[in-house]
Amino acid sequence: MTKAVIPGTFDPVTSGHMDVIERATAIFDELVVGVAVSEMKNERGPLFDLNERIEFLRVATAHVPQVSVAPFSKLLVDFVREQGATAIVKGLRAMTDFEHEFQMAALNWRLDRRVETMFIMSAPDYMYLSSSAVKEIAVHGGDLTGLVPPVVQAALRKRFIA
Amino acid sequence: MTKAVIPGTFDPVTSGHMDVIERATAIFDELVVGVAVSEMKNERGPLFDLNERIEFLRVATAHVPQVSVAPFSKLLVDFVREQGATAIVKGLRAMTDFEHEFQMAALNWRLDRRVETMFIMSAPDYMYLSSSAVKEIAVHGGDLTGLVPPVVQAALRKRFIA
Amino acid sequence: MTKAVIPGTFDPVTSGHMDVIERATAIFDELVVGVAVSEMKNERGPLFDLNERIEFLRVATAHVPQVSVAPFSKLLVDFVREQGATAIVKGLRAMTDFEHEFQMAALNWRLDRRVETMFIMSAPDYMYLSSSAVKEIAVHGGDLTGLVPPVVQAALRKRFIA
Amino acid sequence: MTKAVIPGTFDPVTSGHMDVIERATAIFDELVVGVAVSEMKNERGPLFDLNERIEFLRVATAHVPQVSVAPFSKLLVDFVREQGATAIVKGLRAMTDFEHEFQMAALNWRLDRRVETMFIMSAPDYMYLSSSAVKEIAVHGGDLTGLVPPVVQAALRKRFIA
Amino acid sequence: MTKAVIPGTFDPVTSGHMDVIERATAIFDELVVGVAVSEMKNERGPLFDLNERIEFLRVATAHVPQVSVAPFSKLLVDFVREQGATAIVKGLRAMTDFEHEFQMAALNWRLDRRVETMFIMSAPDYMYLSSSAVKEIAVHGGDLTGLVPPVVQAALRKRFIA
Amino acid sequence: MTKAVIPGTFDPVTSGHMDVIERATAIFDELVVGVAVSEMKNERGPLFDLNERIEFLRVATAHVPQVSVAPFSKLLVDFVREQGATAIVKGLRAMTDFEHEFQMAALNWRLDRRVETMFIMSAPDYMYLSSSAVKEIAVHGGDLTGLVPPVVQAALRKRFIA
Repeated sequence: MTKAVIPGTFDPVTSGHMDVIERATAIFDELVVGVAVSEMKNERGPLFDLNERIEFLRVATAHVPQVSVAPFSKLLVDFVREQGATAIVKGLRAMTDFEHEFQMAALNWRLDRRVETMFIMSAPDYMYLSSSAVKEIAVHGGDLTGLVPPVVQAALRKRFIA
Repeated sequence: MTKAVIPGTFDPVTSGHMDVIERATAIFDELVVGVAVSEMKNERGPLFDLNERIEFLRVATAHVPQVSVAPFSKLLVDFVREQGATAIVKGLRAMTDFEHEFQMAALNWRLDRRVETMFIMSAPDYMYLSSSAVKEIAVHGGDLTGLVPPVVQAALRKRFIA
Repeated sequence: MTKAVIPGTFDPVTSGHMDVIERATAIFDELVVGVAVSEMKNERGPLFDLNERIEFLRVATAHVPQVSVAPFSKLLVDFVREQGATAIVKGLRAMTDFEHEFQMAALNWRLDRRVETMFIMSAPDYMYLSSSAVKEIAVHGGDLTGLVPPVVQAALRKRFIA
Repeated sequence: MTKAVIPGTFDPVTSGHMDVIERATAIFDELVVGVAVSEMKNERGPLFDLNERIEFLRVATAHVPQVSVAPFSKLLVDFVREQGATAIVKGLRAMTDFEHEFQMAALNWRLDRRVETMFIMSAPDYMYLSSSAVKEIAVHGGDLTGLVPPVVQAALRKRFIA
Repeated sequence: MTKAVIPGTFDPVTSGHMDVIERATAIFDELVVGVAVSEMKNERGPLFDLNERIEFLRVATAHVPQVSVAPFSKLLVDFVREQGATAIVKGLRAMTDFEHEFQMAALNWRLDRRVETMFIMSAPDYMYLSSSAVKEIAVHGGDLTGLVPPVVQAALRKRFIA
Repeated sequence: MTKAVIPGTFDPVTSGHMDVIERATAIFDELVVGVAVSEMKNERGPLFDLNERIEFLRVATAHVPQVSVAPFSKLLVDFVREQGATAIVKGLRAMTDFEHEFQMAALNWRLDRRVETMFIMSAPDYMYLSSSAVKEIAVHGGDLTGLVPPVVQAALRKRFIA
């Protein structure tokens, strides 16, 4: 039985994340979506708090029984081992992703060689998609249909319009 | 008649921006330089306020009659349509630019397929030039001749020295 | 009136090339598809001879009146000037394309500054598509529907199966 | 049970290939090393013929029971399906690899969405290693210890020195 | 006699920095490690103050007599000239580094053509290593042996655990 | 005293090569331009034979006393050691160069850690320039002034026109 962790901030989860999660279930028996509590990327903090981000993922992955969702606030390799998993799965959209992900994978390999990182390419349709792009569109009232799961679309509409 | 938008923050406009604007006039009948009101890139906000940035561009493009300058604070594709334009023009300096611009172009294409993004390569002489580099040099009193239009050179000198 | 040249070997023309040609007609009044006679890329020579490659393009662009097709065997900038055009249009699929195209654009700019090179991003659906991939699939009898214009699909089937 | 194919020319297999094969066995229950019969990359043909390349792989993977070796001369996705596998595994060394592999993965995804491509990063120690580099060193009598499996080291010594 | 400057923030110095410093002493007679006072990269300011960062470097380079350490808060090319040096040495880890460093080198070349920038590749073992990664590992109590000089390891342990 | 090797095929030497050679003399006391006898890159063999390529370099570097020219047909690290040099110097033009050069540098570092590879960025004016581009322009009778040393310009004119 193989178990993998898909880590991220998921602020919020997009259709691109969902595509990677669903495709990874063809390879792994069990998948844990690991939601990072703290996020270094953005000085202003996440748009949605940890509980909201986890809830969106639970609703969006409810139809995939082998997927569970859990928060983490430690070194990723420690979280992976603690979950009894042996692999990290990451989606790659483009070159910049690749470079950053490559450094993270090499660092994690240095920290714990028993944890393997595997990459899945984004579907071409989602190559332009990021959580930041989604938030930018939402702020300006653009159409998000197909870019995020329905639960996220509703939450963004409520946040920025209502 | 073809009309295009050249979007950016222009904080401040550099000789590299001017080169792209001037070269684009050989292709398009009318050009709107779109100045983004809000800028996500920098937590500390822009160095020059919106009115200053627009004024610098108006002075620097005064000799090119088919160019106008306008602020925008909405989705870029909405601004383009509102201006009656059908294309976005962006200058590319290097790989990192390319990757980011590629995602923006694909996202805009997803939001509105009637708006086409076209890219012009930076002249080799301006490949190293960015608004941030210009500000860094200005802070340390370096020579900006040839790197920015005269109106910007004067403003930076006044801001950091006087 | 603006006139541009779209250069290439087109051995054979793919749906990705067609997408770039069709999108460029929204910007330029007139387009010349320039078919390179000699091709340095492949030691074994092209699969289709010059006349076939031109014929495929003529059939595939018949519905777009502002497009014409012409062979060339000189420096691209000389061909562009000779055609009375002021711009070169190239489609970009990915990073490797970008790097090579960037060098060509800079070289052409050095040879003749009156000729501007503009780039259009491939639609995400065609990012994986190249003439070589098409030939590889054809050799192995794979399905080419949607990857090439019908005239090319028929020619490839005849070449590799009949 | 998950089964994957690791495709390549393996002319000859290097320690970098071996590292990817061994690490993939931690994820997949069964692995087929698919050796491409024809190789487009090199006009002069492979250094070792198909039987030699397969034999080297069999000797080098003899200690890993879940690995088998098989030649293929059809579209990769057809070979994968024929083997009853659902995934392709590729090692990534660097940016150029990434770009090429990305196009192949997207193309294969277009040809058959039931076949997933997954990537494993090269160990940092093997990032410089390629079959061509190995052959270049062998031609000049350089030391290959650690760069190729012993069976390949012996064959290269015999080929270039004896 | 050739003298070079190795500039950076060194917050804190890593084993990757040390590797570049030590290898550069094989080429240059004298090396000045230039520690940037202000750092634009991080809004929250450096983890270690200027004096700590300089002290770590002095302890870590004490065994290399031709290396000295000095702070700077001016344009790098001005600092280089002031030190009587003729070259800047930078370590390159990966593509993203390359792109940024390329722009800085071209900018510095534009500001002063008498100052040459030279690049040394990171050893493969340090390609994943950055000051940020080190801080991230330290925050979570991970093992830093081999990733930073002993003086830094002690300081990080004291900062985050004691 | 530091001595370095600048290796290449130099078929023929361009103004970009000359720029790197001249700038390297500011760092190294002695420079050997190493001309590779055999060239894997091109199936059709070099345009100029080894003696011509060496002669062009000797004429073009005659004004720089610390530069010598020598052929080599062994592993580069062996040639470097044989010449009593401790460094390899390479010019970098762009991303594709970088990737290939990075692999070569890592490989050479693996073969002999006493030999250091250092990189100098191309001047922006020569970023588009390669020996292949020069030959392509020469074949079509384009103007080569400033792109190659006068001795090469004369030889190309004689080869392709006379």
